[in-house]
Amino acid sequence: MNAPVSALRSYLEDICGSAYVSSDPEVLYTYGSDQTLHLHFPFDLLVKPGNPEEISKILQYCNRHNIAVVPRGGGSGVAGAALPVKGGVVLSLERLNRILGIYNVDGYVIAEAGVVTADLCKAVEQQGLYLPVAPSSMSFSFVGGNVATNAGSIRSCRYGTTAQQVMNLEVVLPDGRIIWTGANVRKNATGVNPTQLFVGSEGTLGVITKVVYRLIPRPRTEVMLLAGFCCLEDALGMVMALKAAELSPTATELICENALQLTAAYLKERQPLVQDGINTHLLIEFQEPDQVIMDHRLDAVSAILQQHRCVDVLVATTATEKERVSKLRYAIGEAMNSFGTTYRDVDACVPLSGLQQYIETVTAICNRHQVPLICFGHALDGNPHAMLLLSNKATQAELAALAAAADEIYGYVTTHGGVVSGEHGIGWLQQQYLPLQFDENRLSLTRQIKSMLDPGNIMNPGKAAL
Amino acid sequence: MNAPVSALRSYLEDICGSAYVSSDPEVLYTYGSDQTLHLHFPFDLLVKPGNPEEISKILQYCNRHNIAVVPRGGGSGVAGAALPVKGGVVLSLERLNRILGIYNVDGYVIAEAGVVTADLCKAVEQQGLYLPVAPSSMSFSFVGGNVATNAGSIRSCRYGTTAQQVMNLEVVLPDGRIIWTGANVRKNATGVNPTQLFVGSEGTLGVITKVVYRLIPRPRTEVMLLAGFCCLEDALGMVMALKAAELSPTATELICENALQLTAAYLKERQPLVQDGINTHLLIEFQEPDQVIMDHRLDAVSAILQQHRCVDVLVATTATEKERVSKLRYAIGEAMNSFGTTYRDVDACVPLSGLQQYIETVTAICNRHQVPLICFGHALDGNPHAMLLLSNKATQAELAALAAAADEIYGYVTTHGGVVSGEHGIGWLQQQYLPLQFDENRLSLTRQIKSMLDPGNIMNPGKAAL
Repeated sequence: MNAPVSALRSYLEDICGSAYVSSDPEVLYTYGSDQTLHLHFPFDLLVKPGNPEEISKILQYCNRHNIAVVPRGGGSGVAGAALPVKGGVVLSLERLNRILGIYNVDGYVIAEAGVVTADLCKAVEQQGLYLPVAPSSMSFSFVGGNVATNAGSIRSCRYGTTAQQVMNLEVVLPDGRIIWTGANVRKNATGVNPTQLFVGSEGTLGVITKVVYRLIPRPRTEVMLLAGFCCLEDALGMVMALKAAELSPTATELICENALQLTAAYLKERQPLVQDGINTHLLIEFQEPDQVIMDHRLDAVSAILQQHRCVDVLVATTATEKERVSKLRYAIGEAMNSFGTTYRDVDACVPLSGLQQYIETVTAICNRHQVPLICFGHALDGNPHAMLLLSNKATQAELAALAAAADEIYGYVTTHGGVVSGEHGIGWLQQQYLPLQFDENRLSLTRQIKSMLDPGNIMNPGKAAL
Repeated sequence: MNAPVSALRSYLEDICGSAYVSSDPEVLYTYGSDQTLHLHFPFDLLVKPGNPEEISKILQYCNRHNIAVVPRGGGSGVAGAALPVKGGVVLSLERLNRILGIYNVDGYVIAEAGVVTADLCKAVEQQGLYLPVAPSSMSFSFVGGNVATNAGSIRSCRYGTTAQQVMNLEVVLPDGRIIWTGANVRKNATGVNPTQLFVGSEGTLGVITKVVYRLIPRPRTEVMLLAGFCCLEDALGMVMALKAAELSPTATELICENALQLTAAYLKERQPLVQDGINTHLLIEFQEPDQVIMDHRLDAVSAILQQHRCVDVLVATTATEKERVSKLRYAIGEAMNSFGTTYRDVDACVPLSGLQQYIETVTAICNRHQVPLICFGHALDGNPHAMLLLSNKATQAELAALAAAADEIYGYVTTHGGVVSGEHGIGWLQQQYLPLQFDENRLSLTRQIKSMLDPGNIMNPGKAAL
């Protein structure tokens, strides 16, 4: 341990207590990675502060001594935003794990940044309320991380992404100032409001320590439909029809032929609607306030499914039935991993009107570069995931082919009204593509905001093209 | 005309054409005021640029020569945000009045900043879509002004304020850079997103030139209910019951006894539910996708009204009926003006759980200071308007009493979880109260953002406590 690190360690131990500072290599190995490919990075010290005041002191010290600080939530990111690519300190929010208040009449919840997403959702549901922030990582992701990455979910097509639920934030700025960005009221017209500046900022502008989320009433009914189609075109026709009929489903998960075949082969037992004549699935969910409205919705959907050449449909209302119809969808990730591959997750979001052309283009690009493709995800949001598979023993040529395919896809996306990431973020992995999306004026504004708040560039350096 | 103004005039005429530059005293008198009290301010030149490129050149020139620039929309503000309090140039957006595209499948509209709000709403409704940005000034306010002030409306209780509808903005920054802040897609996780920084910034950070609004399906049914109660407590009990029953009305306009009496006396013909035993009104609106869901809602509301001591209720479904039941609500402003008074509009927003206590406190404060009070507005949002009346011939003592009452009200609001403004903004009139709401750390962040983007302080100087 070199002298500056030793001094840093003493300082951190003085502030947080020695139990909450670690340089154990095994611990650091774990915290040096997230869910991004198989990447991990070395760094000096892990610190687990207990409150915003401790974080303020840490940031002030690191600013004085030019030490990189990487805030870390649950480590569920797939774009590498939590990777300590410049070493330094990893600052875990895991001890800030209290739900501070659920306000039923006023319709909001205050939680510390380190609360696990699923725990918060469960707590508010027990009060008859609902927090529609449900990323697939919700069993281990933190609410602070959801905000820092503007996390989406399968339910964004009804409820929007995390940004839409954030009412107010407590943030420790890089110079140590602790601020509340907004207010806990339903309407707020009190001038410049910096709240949303921190949503999606991926730890580059400060440390989010408390989150105030708007809550809505808990839907009392929820139904899933698994619909099978003979081809992509019919399934997307159904998505457009759902949109046109204004039925506002809470999920419209598309499972393309490649994802369906891979996952059906991976799962041992036979899955529903895996049969001749069906090569594309659509998993549709509705949440409604009560049974009368749900029945009314389902009547309308039923008519539309018939009009759109749905080959077969299963309706799931119990937990067991829902698990059965959604099992294949949720096993796609495991299936991809089990084949000895990792994957480059292309998470572009495109206008809905261009969705079919986007999927066809991605397929053609991958075919041409001989890169295996698995395509599935959030159809109604124009945000399918295109997973470019990569063998763990990939050759240089295969790596080059994957990179070339990704370049072409992002080139297409950004010249057709789309964005580089719909929900996974820019982080470390996607930085090179940001200049495709934004011109120099826009990029310069982001850099200006960064250097205003963090002139020493200590916060999560080397990320988000900053 | 002094030398710098003459040079400025030549420059502006070169850029925009002489037809679009004016120093006519009558024109300047009009553009030197908005809807704020009877205030107006002198300034040098009015300019009406035709596109963002012209605005960019104007801002660059004014930056070099340290000339104040006040962007102006429809002039509907009541907090004085558009008043040229430091003179200089008033930059009207009225020529940027084109709707550039309505994208039905993708669910958004692109409009120039100078489009009149009601025109845009009408245009999207003709396409079967709906823009729930409906401030009471919508017949003459501009969409750019709605964004710049984060305008609310009677329908914010269902749809939120303008902020919730903004997807992307084109902004001319004070140094002349023209940027698009975000992207026209449903999900966007591409790092720091400055879009919402400009929402509610009241012309202090740049000139908003184009607005992209999210659209929702047009509700096919709309019903208004006018409910009469014997007292404020019963009416607010009904508001809480609507909230608890999760009925999500699109309006819950409270009309307190003082507003009811004043307006009923002002209107010549007898108004519905103005009768013995009723001293408080609640105007409730529902918008639903179809008649089945509407009927289901109305059944539920009917039961709740009976439980909450509603004295009488009128149901309005036709345009004529709606006009009849809402006439009194919409005549409150005229009624206040007709009595030879103007008013200080206290537009605080408080937590719903504290609404009744807030109204009682405001009433007590006004009684103590002998300031006439008219109270009405957006109950479910915790955003009633407390109008402190002021005679046009007010004495110094009356002016002092009004100021003292306003001070006390804002002191109460900001120590009880509320904000100084729910929808009207800070502008010129409410600046002094902002430090009650925000601590120095938070205020310093806003100032930092301002000086980052506008180091010369040319944009709308003297506003929003900047």
